[in-house]
Amino acid sequence: MQSLRIVVVNPVAIEGEDDPAFAVQAARGKDLRIGLLEAGYNIVASLPADLYLPERIAQLQPDMIIVDAESNARDVLEHVVVATRDARRPIVLFTEDAKTSSMDAAMAAGVSAYIVAGLQTARIKPVLDVALARFRQEQKSLAELSDTKLKLAERKVLERAKGLLMEHHKLSEQEAYQKLRRLAMDKNLKLSEVAQRIIDAADLLG
Amino acid sequence: MQSLRIVVVNPVAIEGEDDPAFAVQAARGKDLRIGLLEAGYNIVASLPADLYLPERIAQLQPDMIIVDAESNARDVLEHVVVATRDARRPIVLFTEDAKTSSMDAAMAAGVSAYIVAGLQTARIKPVLDVALARFRQEQKSLAELSDTKLKLAERKVLERAKGLLMEHHKLSEQEAYQKLRRLAMDKNLKLSEVAQRIIDAADLLG
Repeated sequence: MQSLRIVVVNPVAIEGEDDPAFAVQAARGKDLRIGLLEAGYNIVASLPADLYLPERIAQLQPDMIIVDAESNARDVLEHVVVATRDARRPIVLFTEDAKTSSMDAAMAAGVSAYIVAGLQTARIKPVLDVALARFRQEQKSLAELSDTKLKLAERKVLERAKGLLMEHHKLSEQEAYQKLRRLAMDKNLKLSEVAQRIIDAADLLG
Repeated sequence: MQSLRIVVVNPVAIEGEDDPAFAVQAARGKDLRIGLLEAGYNIVASLPADLYLPERIAQLQPDMIIVDAESNARDVLEHVVVATRDARRPIVLFTEDAKTSSMDAAMAAGVSAYIVAGLQTARIKPVLDVALARFRQEQKSLAELSDTKLKLAERKVLERAKGLLMEHHKLSEQEAYQKLRRLAMDKNLKLSEVAQRIIDAADLLG
């Protein structure tokens, strides 16, 4: 099996190497990277959570993003969420932030795993495997939701167009539907696209 | 804050106390219960995953269900899922089963946390807090999905009824809609209920 390509994202170290927080974060980061390498993962990059993150993630196309942020996890997460908005990826967060509000925010942002005080290297593989399973399940749920929303939107358009045809051309419901289907086939368009054009034309003509 | 009321669910021990697996499971269970009590949780019951589980959970109304199953987690989970089908509750699974297929099955079953080799008592509170945050988020997503599905179903019924009125009573779309609204107000019914009755009547009369 090809090993998982991982991007690790860290908070931006503003003060540089003189800041004591920098040393703590650096030690955390080192432990995490050693754990990942020992477990056989492929760390393709270790990046700061800055404005360049979206571009870099788009280039690297990692299988998973691991956020390692002791405290200011929300700021880091915001950048990661922006960077994965168009192509969702599993996000795993290792943090010391045990506030319920931070957890709620992370769940709403679509984080696949939120691990507090959990940098035990022996546990990394099952933790990441569960995160992947969670991600797959959430993608399924999101697909079902967007599919249902699309059907609802298409139906609204279709029924509105059918109503217009029934009214203006004195057709039965069945005849209006047949007319829409025939137009869709003739023009090689989706039923909802034909319907939208009929509505647009009716709006235009008043 | 009221402490969380927890029900712990264990696999059914078929062979009884002579079975070596029973001793292992009993030791696991003891560690978990000690950890929960030390973290301030209220264990209201410790139950086997048998046919009586749904009834007992309905009686106890716990805030969370913790499944402690070293290996045969899927069997136990099945019972718990049945027992929480009508009133969903956060389910946390502690197990040694690191198979991806088991993780996928657990995610699909709606498990809020899947913890492999994770009985470190110091980590129990953040793990359960994350599970609760996950559960809240999933309840929101499920509510959005069922709301969208309901809207789609209601719209199908409404548009079908409108079409019938337009066809049989030679009404415009707007008139048909007004008629449905008036009927709903007169009969003190939801618009979709009136629409369903019209469809039922039309089906009956051919």
